[in-house]
Amino acid sequence: MTTEQLTEQIKKKKSFLCIGLDVDLNKIPQHVLDEEDPIFSFNKAIIDATHHLCVAYKPNTAFYEAYGIKGWKSLEKTIKYLNEKYPEIYTIADAKRGDIGNTSSMYAKAFFEDLGFDSVTVAPYMGKDSVEPFLAFEHKHTIMLALTSNEGAFDFQTKTIEGKELYKQVLETSKTWKNSKNLMYVVGATKAEYFADIRNIVPDSFLLVPGVGAQGGNLQDVCKYGLNKHVGLLINSSRGIIYASNQTDFAQAAANKAKELQQEIEVILNSHSEE
Amino acid sequence: MTTEQLTEQIKKKKSFLCIGLDVDLNKIPQHVLDEEDPIFSFNKAIIDATHHLCVAYKPNTAFYEAYGIKGWKSLEKTIKYLNEKYPEIYTIADAKRGDIGNTSSMYAKAFFEDLGFDSVTVAPYMGKDSVEPFLAFEHKHTIMLALTSNEGAFDFQTKTIEGKELYKQVLETSKTWKNSKNLMYVVGATKAEYFADIRNIVPDSFLLVPGVGAQGGNLQDVCKYGLNKHVGLLINSSRGIIYASNQTDFAQAAANKAKELQQEIEVILNSHSEE
Repeated sequence: MTTEQLTEQIKKKKSFLCIGLDVDLNKIPQHVLDEEDPIFSFNKAIIDATHHLCVAYKPNTAFYEAYGIKGWKSLEKTIKYLNEKYPEIYTIADAKRGDIGNTSSMYAKAFFEDLGFDSVTVAPYMGKDSVEPFLAFEHKHTIMLALTSNEGAFDFQTKTIEGKELYKQVLETSKTWKNSKNLMYVVGATKAEYFADIRNIVPDSFLLVPGVGAQGGNLQDVCKYGLNKHVGLLINSSRGIIYASNQTDFAQAAANKAKELQQEIEVILNSHSEE
Repeated sequence: MTTEQLTEQIKKKKSFLCIGLDVDLNKIPQHVLDEEDPIFSFNKAIIDATHHLCVAYKPNTAFYEAYGIKGWKSLEKTIKYLNEKYPEIYTIADAKRGDIGNTSSMYAKAFFEDLGFDSVTVAPYMGKDSVEPFLAFEHKHTIMLALTSNEGAFDFQTKTIEGKELYKQVLETSKTWKNSKNLMYVVGATKAEYFADIRNIVPDSFLLVPGVGAQGGNLQDVCKYGLNKHVGLLINSSRGIIYASNQTDFAQAAANKAKELQQEIEVILNSHSEE
């Protein structure tokens, strides 16, 4: 999917919500566990109930790998279901991969071609030749960690490196890489005070913003500096939506939570387009 | 496996060779492709032919993920075969994972408990709370990227951050983390001139050293500064060994290549123990 198609979908749905499909069998409703493939059944119900309220889904691959082959089957079924039933939806494999060139190519092939995701998250530590193999895929996005939502972001990311914080070096350096137009960046909602600086460096890029909800990030603060002329934001919520209820009404409860966020986003989008 | 057990195995076998099981179906002998599970058959043949010459095997997970569920089955069979038939062998899941705390826990559980690896490689960019969930597992090692073997290592890792190169900050900071005794570090053989500095910071830790062979690193240079009183080195070779031949003699050819390296290592170990 192109950036333009994503922006179009956002404007049409009045939403830049991304729902994180981080399925933990210890947290899903008891009755779903009786299904043949509980993870897929759970995802399917959540997707059917929320697809009109969001523009993207983001399964974190850790939650699927944790269940071995069974988990990978659930992931494959989930992405296949999304691509077939809701092709307008943008999909993100939250995998945080990154390796030497020939190995990154294997990961890129797996997520973009075999599984059919629109995008994959990657880690920047190994530099240019670990990310460029992902960028080589046309109409696919590579979403690089810049400033993450967790406490550990302060260990290295915000440290000053040759006069500039590491996450800023990562943003600036990555702009020089081949096919850098295919980059998006992860910036945590818990770091809202950094968004103005980030927008100065990457004014046109989409930012994937986790950390609204369970991790405590504030939507208004993020949007104040994060929105750009293409909207440029995907706000992710995982646990706050998918675990809204662990009873038989879980899908409806998730939809209600997603609707709350979508409505908040709609107000923001309306006032943004008037500016 | 404990560090002491690993050192014992190294002394007994006179080898600190690790063989990278990075299996690409385009590169393995034609006749193996006719097997029911070509990747596992290839690995099994390589392992049976080389297990007495090395102390560790390191499958890079990218090469298995690239083949989807089939690939994960091959990975499961490979680690199971190693743990059952050669329990003295040290196993490394080269996965380069790292995520927020609850997600890193999922990865740690998958690689240490479900798959049964002795260790897993992780990326440091997200800091302390992305790595500590791995460190919590007793008798398991977490092998963190410090200075990688690729060209992109110079993009960020060797940049100066608050008076010190980033990779040194990573080494020093990680020593303060809970259960840091369970850490090892990835340091590329192509960066041999950095080993003296690295040994000053982490004198006692094991270093996993990729980049000998195909990537051009020199074994003598690495050992000169890298060896410590527990040996402290695992030298990895992947393509140089496993693709030594693509004919029916591939396993024997791999063993010959492994034997060359083992003999070189034996000479180094003998002269090291005399010092």
